[in-house]
Amino acid sequence: MSGNTFGKIFKITTFGESHGLAMGCILDGCPPNISLSKEDIQLELNRRKPGQSDVTTQRKEDDLVEILSGVFEGKTLGTPIGMIIYNKDQKSKDYSNIKDVFRPNHADITYQAKYGHRDYRGGGRASARETVNWVAAGSIAKKILQKEGVSVNGFVSEIGTVKADVINHKEINNKYFFCDDSKLSNLDSMFHDLIEEGNSVGAKLGVIVENCPVGLGDPVFEKLDANLAKAIMTINAVKSVSIGNADELLYLKGSEARDEITSSGYSSNNSGGILGGISNGDDISLSFIIKPTSSIKTEGNTINKKGEEIKIEVTGRHDPCVGIRAVPIAEAMVSLVLVDHLLINKAQCANVEQNLPFTE
Amino acid sequence: MSGNTFGKIFKITTFGESHGLAMGCILDGCPPNISLSKEDIQLELNRRKPGQSDVTTQRKEDDLVEILSGVFEGKTLGTPIGMIIYNKDQKSKDYSNIKDVFRPNHADITYQAKYGHRDYRGGGRASARETVNWVAAGSIAKKILQKEGVSVNGFVSEIGTVKADVINHKEINNKYFFCDDSKLSNLDSMFHDLIEEGNSVGAKLGVIVENCPVGLGDPVFEKLDANLAKAIMTINAVKSVSIGNADELLYLKGSEARDEITSSGYSSNNSGGILGGISNGDDISLSFIIKPTSSIKTEGNTINKKGEEIKIEVTGRHDPCVGIRAVPIAEAMVSLVLVDHLLINKAQCANVEQNLPFTE
Amino acid sequence: MSGNTFGKIFKITTFGESHGLAMGCILDGCPPNISLSKEDIQLELNRRKPGQSDVTTQRKEDDLVEILSGVFEGKTLGTPIGMIIYNKDQKSKDYSNIKDVFRPNHADITYQAKYGHRDYRGGGRASARETVNWVAAGSIAKKILQKEGVSVNGFVSEIGTVKADVINHKEINNKYFFCDDSKLSNLDSMFHDLIEEGNSVGAKLGVIVENCPVGLGDPVFEKLDANLAKAIMTINAVKSVSIGNADELLYLKGSEARDEITSSGYSSNNSGGILGGISNGDDISLSFIIKPTSSIKTEGNTINKKGEEIKIEVTGRHDPCVGIRAVPIAEAMVSLVLVDHLLINKAQCANVEQNLPFTE
Amino acid sequence: MSGNTFGKIFKITTFGESHGLAMGCILDGCPPNISLSKEDIQLELNRRKPGQSDVTTQRKEDDLVEILSGVFEGKTLGTPIGMIIYNKDQKSKDYSNIKDVFRPNHADITYQAKYGHRDYRGGGRASARETVNWVAAGSIAKKILQKEGVSVNGFVSEIGTVKADVINHKEINNKYFFCDDSKLSNLDSMFHDLIEEGNSVGAKLGVIVENCPVGLGDPVFEKLDANLAKAIMTINAVKSVSIGNADELLYLKGSEARDEITSSGYSSNNSGGILGGISNGDDISLSFIIKPTSSIKTEGNTINKKGEEIKIEVTGRHDPCVGIRAVPIAEAMVSLVLVDHLLINKAQCANVEQNLPFTE
Repeated sequence: MSGNTFGKIFKITTFGESHGLAMGCILDGCPPNISLSKEDIQLELNRRKPGQSDVTTQRKEDDLVEILSGVFEGKTLGTPIGMIIYNKDQKSKDYSNIKDVFRPNHADITYQAKYGHRDYRGGGRASARETVNWVAAGSIAKKILQKEGVSVNGFVSEIGTVKADVINHKEINNKYFFCDDSKLSNLDSMFHDLIEEGNSVGAKLGVIVENCPVGLGDPVFEKLDANLAKAIMTINAVKSVSIGNADELLYLKGSEARDEITSSGYSSNNSGGILGGISNGDDISLSFIIKPTSSIKTEGNTINKKGEEIKIEVTGRHDPCVGIRAVPIAEAMVSLVLVDHLLINKAQCANVEQNLPFTE
Repeated sequence: MSGNTFGKIFKITTFGESHGLAMGCILDGCPPNISLSKEDIQLELNRRKPGQSDVTTQRKEDDLVEILSGVFEGKTLGTPIGMIIYNKDQKSKDYSNIKDVFRPNHADITYQAKYGHRDYRGGGRASARETVNWVAAGSIAKKILQKEGVSVNGFVSEIGTVKADVINHKEINNKYFFCDDSKLSNLDSMFHDLIEEGNSVGAKLGVIVENCPVGLGDPVFEKLDANLAKAIMTINAVKSVSIGNADELLYLKGSEARDEITSSGYSSNNSGGILGGISNGDDISLSFIIKPTSSIKTEGNTINKKGEEIKIEVTGRHDPCVGIRAVPIAEAMVSLVLVDHLLINKAQCANVEQNLPFTE
Repeated sequence: MSGNTFGKIFKITTFGESHGLAMGCILDGCPPNISLSKEDIQLELNRRKPGQSDVTTQRKEDDLVEILSGVFEGKTLGTPIGMIIYNKDQKSKDYSNIKDVFRPNHADITYQAKYGHRDYRGGGRASARETVNWVAAGSIAKKILQKEGVSVNGFVSEIGTVKADVINHKEINNKYFFCDDSKLSNLDSMFHDLIEEGNSVGAKLGVIVENCPVGLGDPVFEKLDANLAKAIMTINAVKSVSIGNADELLYLKGSEARDEITSSGYSSNNSGGILGGISNGDDISLSFIIKPTSSIKTEGNTINKKGEEIKIEVTGRHDPCVGIRAVPIAEAMVSLVLVDHLLINKAQCANVEQNLPFTE
Repeated sequence: MSGNTFGKIFKITTFGESHGLAMGCILDGCPPNISLSKEDIQLELNRRKPGQSDVTTQRKEDDLVEILSGVFEGKTLGTPIGMIIYNKDQKSKDYSNIKDVFRPNHADITYQAKYGHRDYRGGGRASARETVNWVAAGSIAKKILQKEGVSVNGFVSEIGTVKADVINHKEINNKYFFCDDSKLSNLDSMFHDLIEEGNSVGAKLGVIVENCPVGLGDPVFEKLDANLAKAIMTINAVKSVSIGNADELLYLKGSEARDEITSSGYSSNNSGGILGGISNGDDISLSFIIKPTSSIKTEGNTINKKGEEIKIEVTGRHDPCVGIRAVPIAEAMVSLVLVDHLLINKAQCANVEQNLPFTE
C-alpha cells in the first residue's frame, strides 16, 4: 500500500531509490509565513552528509536541496513544499555480481519476495539514502520548534563496546562521532581494527528534547511516546527504542521509579517526560539501538534468486558503524513528530490554557 | 485530535473511561464471511480479566461482550462490528480525596493540563481498562490469523528481579503468571513482600509470531517493525520495545549479527523476522519492558491542582505488577497490526506470488 | 475496507444495521469543555425521527440516545464520545419472501455481490436508519458552530413536480414538510395520490450556512466544496449536488457570473460562498436532488439470487418521498464538515489573523 | 492542514504553484510489475496541454514529465513514483498591477485571508496548472484499468448555450472541443464573439466508465458515488456534479425511476451504475457543470488589499471556456478513484467471488 507518508497534519511524503535519479519529498501542512530558505535546509543536510569522516561511507554526494514550491519571497505559503535532491554518485558500475544475490540481513530478499521486482543497483528504496528526505523536512520542523523555544539534540552514547563517559548533548554537534570524546582513542583504535578486518559494530544513541510544552500527544492510539517509538524504529537498522529510564526501570520498585511531584516540578524524570502518552513539560528523553552494519567485507553465506548457496563479500562504500550518521536523522524524525503533535494539539485544544500548576 | 483509531484498513476505534458506563469499540474493515461468535471474543477477554490471581487487581468485572452489529447468522457481514462491554464495578465511592490531586507518574497531571477537564474517578481514558477493547478486537484478528496458520503468543520473561529460566511460549497460557514456573517460589515470595510493603515491580515480556507469511510491511513509513513498536508502546506502562535480538546486537560484530542465508532458510534470527520493514518469513520476535505500577500504597510526595504540596497513598485495587496481565493485551495489539498489514499487502501486491527461494 | 469513518480531525465512526440490535457512533476529536447533555442530541434526533407525519415511514422508533463516554459533569472531556441508540422496532416478521430477492434500485444486489453475505431483514447497513448516527454526532457539531455564531439550515424546495414559492430557511423547521407551505394543498393532494397508487417522488433540497468564517477549506484535495459534495452525496438516495448558483451558471457569461467585490462585500453570491475551495465569508449555499423512493408497492420486475426473474411489490413502512426527512440529515453532514475544517484551520493557520479587507 | 493528498491506498500527493519552478507529484501504492514508460504518461499530458486550439490558453508549456523514481527496467517497483514537470512559461512579467488586487471570483481573496501570504504572480496553488499532476498520475491509473478491461471516457455535452446533439463518447477524443461536432459552426461563432467581447461561458461535461467490475465502493462513508463527487468537485471551476440520470429523476415517479432487473441485466440505468455506494456492474455515468471562466477582459469591480474599490480587467492567456480542457482532467480524477477502490476492494473482499447472478 501507500506507506510513504509520515505524519497526520504536518506530514511528509517521500520518494527515491538510492541509485535512481533523485530523492525528494513533499512537506504538507506547514504553517504559512514561516521564513525559510534553501540554506536553512542545507545546514541540516550537511550534518548528515556522507564522507565527513574516515569511518563513514565515502559515497560522494553534495546533497544539494532545491525548493520547488511552497515558499515565496522567503516565507512559506501554507501550500505543499516540494524539495528535490538529485543523486550524483550513482556510479554506473557493473551490478552483475549482486543482481541476483541476497545480501544477508538486507532487505534484498524481502523486497524481492514482496514486490517480485527490485532495483538491484543498491539498497533501492530500503537504502538509508532515503533519510536525506527526512532530514530536509525535519530541518523545517526544527525551525518551527526553535520559534517555540524547543530544542532537539541527539547524541551517540555507545559505539560497539565503547561507552562514552558523560554525555553533554549540547556540545555533541562539534564532536567527531556525535559522541563525547573522552574515549576518542579507544574509538579510533576500534575503527582501525574494524576497517582492517572488514567488519562493523552497532551503536546506542539518544535524543533529548528540552523545553517541550505540556499537552502534546493524543491518547490512546496517537500517544506521543508511541509515535516517537514508531518514528525511531523507522530509521534504518534500529532494533530497539526506549523512553526515559527504561533500562533501569525493570529493576526499580514503584516507590523508587515514580517521579514524585513538588511545587517546583518533578523530582525525577524516569518517565522521560511523557505520562499517559502526553508530554508532561519535563525534558523528553529517548534512546535506541542500531545494529551493526550488514554490508561488510567479511565473507558470508547466502543464496541467489534460484535458491543456490553462494559466498558473498559486500564491497563498496560502507560505514563500519551506521549509528554515527543517525544523529541528525533521529533529530529530524523526533522533530517531525513533535511539530505534528503541536499542530494537532492546537486543533482540538485551542480553547484550553495548557499550564502546569507549579508555583515556584 | 482524534487519536482513538488504530490501523489503516483493518482498524478499531474505541471509547470509554474506566469509571464510565461502558467500554466499546468498532472494528471496521473486517473481511466478510468469517465465522464469529460472542464466545470467540469472550475467550480472549477472560484471559485478560482482572481478579484471576491473588496478585492482580481485585476489581470485579465479568467483561461480558455484546456484539451489536456486523455479524449475521454467525458470519461477519463486512460491515463494522460494534462491540460493547458495560462497566459493572465502578464503585460509587467517595472521590473527594483524589479529585484535585495528581498521583505521581500517572496521567492525572497531563490530562488536566491538556484538556482542562478530566474524569477524576479513576484513570479515566488513561486507565488500562481501555485495553478490554483491544483484546475484544484482537480476538477477531487472531481468528483471521489462525485461518492463515499464523500464531501469536506472548509471555512474561522477567518480573522485577526474577528472571524466568526457559521460555516455552506455547505452554505459557497455562502458567500462573504467563511465565515459566520454575521460579514460582521466588515469585510468590517477592509478591508476598511487595503486597506487604505496598510496593510494585516492573516486568519484561515477549511476543513470538510463528508462521508469519513473507511480505508484510510497507516501507518506508509503514514498516512492520515500526508499526509493532508503536502498537506495543501504546500499551499502558510500556517504556521500551525491541525487535529480535536487540539487547545483544549492540555487542556483536556485523559478521556475528547478520543472519546468513542457506538454501533451507536463515541460519539465525537476530533480526526478529523483519528485514527492511518487511516480514522475512522467519518467526517474528519482540520484547518489551513495563514499568512498576505507579499506584502503590507507599506514601509519596505530590501536589494538588493549586500547586500545593501534599502526601499521597494510592489505595485501591491495584496490581503489584501490571506486566502480568499485559500478555493477552500485547498479543491483541500484535495481531491487529499483522491483519492490517495482511490486508494491505493483498491490496497492492495481489499480482505477486510472494515466495521465498528456499529449496529445501 | 474500513469506510465507516467520516472526517479528519473531528470525526465519527459508526456502526449498525437497520434490523440489528443497535445503531451507534464514536465522535472523536471533539474539543474539551463543551457543555453537552443527552437532551442536546435528542433535540436533533427528534427532528429526524420517523412517524412524524402521515407521509413518512410508520416505523416506530423513539430513537433515544445514550452517551456512554466522553462527557463528565456536563462537559466534554476531549476523549471519544460513545453514543448508542438501540433499535426497538425491528419487527421479527417473516423475511422468507425477500431473503433471496433483490429489490430494484436497492443495494441488495451490490451488497450481495461485494460481500457474499448480507443482512436480508431490511436495508442492513445500506438503510437510511444509519443516518440516526450522523444526526446524533451532527448535533454536537451544531453546538460548536452555534458557539462561533454559525447557523446551518436546510429546507426542501421541490417535491416531485411541486416547487415551493419562496424559501425562508429560518422558518422551515416549523413547516410540515420542511418546505414553504404556500403549496401545501398541492402537496397534500400529490401525496394522497402517491400513497393510493403505491408510488413515490423525488425532491430537491438546499442548505444555507450563515456567518461562516473565511478560511475554511484546504486546497487542493480537501476543498470545502469538494468535502461538502462528498458529505451530501453520502446521504442515501442523493444523486446530484450543486454549490451556489450552479444551475444558472451554465447559461451566464463570465461577466454576469463573477461575484464582483466592493468595499462592503461581495455584490452577488453565485459562487455559494466558496472560492478556490476556501470559504470566502459569504453565506455558503448548496442544493441537492434525491431520487424517488425505490421501495414502492407498485409491482416491478427483478431477479432472485439464482438469477430467476420474478415480480416484486415492496410492502412495508416506506416514505413516498424520502427527501422530506433528509433536512436534518443534510444539516448534520454539513455541520460535521464545517467543524472538521474549523479545527483543521486552527492547526495550520493559528498564526494568521484571518480577516477580509472589507472596510464598510 | 495537509490537504494535498488524494486517495487512500492508491494515492497521489502533489505540489506546485502556477508560476513556481515546477509541478510534481508522488504516486504511492501503485502495484509492482506494471509496465510503465514516460511516454505512457506524456500521451495523456498532451491531451490536456494548453495551446492546442484557438480558444484555449496560449500559455506555452511542453509539459514534459520526468519519472524520478518507482520505475526500474520499464516496470513499476511498488515504491513511490516521483514525477516532475518543470514550468517553462512562467513569464517574468511585471506583476505590480495584480500584486495587491483581488480578481473577482478567484481564490486571490480567500488565499490571502486564510494564509496571510500568497504567490500573486498567477493563480498560485489555486491555478488549474495543478491539474497537470492529476493527469500524470491518472494516466497510470488508466493503464491499470485498461489491464482490467475498464475504459473511462469524458466528453463535453454543452458549451454555454450550445448543446451537442448526440454524444458518442468513444470518438470524442478526435473532436475539436471534446464535443460532438454537429454544432461546430454554432460553437465557432460563439467563441468568435466571446473572444471579441472579452467574455466567457460555462460548460457541461460527462464521464462514462464502461466495463466497471461490480463491488467497488465502501459504504457508508467511502461510497463510490460520494468519492466520485468529491473528485469531480475538486476540479477547478466545477460547481455541480450528478450521478446517473439525476436531472430527470426529480420529475420521475419511483415506478419509472427504479432500474428493474432481468436475468440478463438491468432494464435501465438511471442510477448511473452505483447502488448503495457500490458499483453494480453497469456503466458508471456522471455529469458536471463548470462555471464561466472568471479571468475575462471585460472590466469589473473589485477591491485591493486595503479594501479600496478599483476597476479590473484580467488580461493574459485565458480560455473563454475552461470546460473544454477539463475532459482529460475529469477522466484522470475518475480513474484515480476507481483504482483506489479496486485495490481497497481486494484488501477486504479477496475471499469473495464477486459475481452478478445474471444468467443470460
